[in-house]
Amino acid sequence: MKIRVYYEDTDLGGIVYHSNYIKYCERARSEVFFKRNMSPTLGENSGFVVRNIEADFLATATLGDMLTVDTSVLSVKNSSTVLLHEIWKDEVKIFSMKVVLVYIAEGKPSRIPDIFKEVFQSY
Amino acid sequence: MKIRVYYEDTDLGGIVYHSNYIKYCERARSEVFFKRNMSPTLGENSGFVVRNIEADFLATATLGDMLTVDTSVLSVKNSSTVLLHEIWKDEVKIFSMKVVLVYIAEGKPSRIPDIFKEVFQSY
Amino acid sequence: MKIRVYYEDTDLGGIVYHSNYIKYCERARSEVFFKRNMSPTLGENSGFVVRNIEADFLATATLGDMLTVDTSVLSVKNSSTVLLHEIWKDEVKIFSMKVVLVYIAEGKPSRIPDIFKEVFQSY
Amino acid sequence: MKIRVYYEDTDLGGIVYHSNYIKYCERARSEVFFKRNMSPTLGENSGFVVRNIEADFLATATLGDMLTVDTSVLSVKNSSTVLLHEIWKDEVKIFSMKVVLVYIAEGKPSRIPDIFKEVFQSY
Repeated sequence: MKIRVYYEDTDLGGIVYHSNYIKYCERARSEVFFKRNMSPTLGENSGFVVRNIEADFLATATLGDMLTVDTSVLSVKNSSTVLLHEIWKDEVKIFSMKVVLVYIAEGKPSRIPDIFKEVFQSY
Repeated sequence: MKIRVYYEDTDLGGIVYHSNYIKYCERARSEVFFKRNMSPTLGENSGFVVRNIEADFLATATLGDMLTVDTSVLSVKNSSTVLLHEIWKDEVKIFSMKVVLVYIAEGKPSRIPDIFKEVFQSY
Repeated sequence: MKIRVYYEDTDLGGIVYHSNYIKYCERARSEVFFKRNMSPTLGENSGFVVRNIEADFLATATLGDMLTVDTSVLSVKNSSTVLLHEIWKDEVKIFSMKVVLVYIAEGKPSRIPDIFKEVFQSY
Repeated sequence: MKIRVYYEDTDLGGIVYHSNYIKYCERARSEVFFKRNMSPTLGENSGFVVRNIEADFLATATLGDMLTVDTSVLSVKNSSTVLLHEIWKDEVKIFSMKVVLVYIAEGKPSRIPDIFKEVFQSY
């Protein structure tokens, strides 16, 4: 997953505003579904929500940079999964984040549908 | 309606990213409803959508600025309304926007509910 | 210029939040420069700023949509240029915006550098 | 620090998009400075950058909610500080984040200026 840094992503420090890296990771998670002509949700009241993140901001990115987001699956349980996202600028890792996602249906944690488990296993 | 400029609002030019002024105006429109303990929507499939905007960017704002958004109603018709938003930094008008809003219910333009018309008339 | 709609772009109405289309247009303007290994700025105190926009919101986009942003140059003057951006979802035009950009150097409107004029003329 | 949830903050799930809570915390950090008529930066090439965050998303917020961001200082070292942000919706804690900030000057970690240390100690 390639992501270009645009004006909207930067702040007055001239670098990408910190929480935008977290948005880039969400784009990468969703893109895996879109690439398969799937949606990451099965209707209005279900989908993955972020429960916990641990993120390290290792270096900076600036306007025009082309970044790469790598995603790997650390674990898949009944109703949750843990992913690792790493963002690279050429050969330099600039961001790393572990995210815990919980699958919600009808407002509460629920079994991840098999169709979604297969997507995670294909990463 | 007072709005503070934060890091997230700026870009590498050191000033507020242009489309954020348009978000500030939407905040001001919604705040009128919230202040009355109302919501600007009457359920999932209804609400105002932006149909047209004409905006002039007159001056810039920077980190920490406290801006004022003034809103006035130019017209209210059966299913649409035209508002004028002006953003001020102290005595200087930095942004002006005319916005046409259309009320949508069940996916199509519909009569603006009286309860909402009253809100606009109170501006 | 292709742009995918992600969660971050949508709002509770289930559609793209209106001001995000304006960000998509800015991405398209910048990408023309990046594709040529150029930057849309010649240093910290110069660059294009948005002076005026007129935008029509014609239809909506939702999560996962792949949009196309077309850009054409309506005019190029000494210190300003007028562009037309149109956003398409398949065969349907969903957004159209005319934007007036002014070139700023040392804090005031200035002659657009030839290197930038050439970029606009190549659209 | 009170923060209202606007349309721009929500996503199609009808709740605040996850990374926006992290922006709210940054607003709270900056506001402490603004309230004292100070800036969180001492010029173009210095300021605090986020090095690490650990965040728990405990519950959700929706359009119109008025949230409270509480900030406390866990530690202040020579060139870094650790803060704890908690976001409340009425009596319910919906978000908690520990953030490590590093003070950067001339591009590298530097001693936090006394004037900034005093701000942190006043939280």
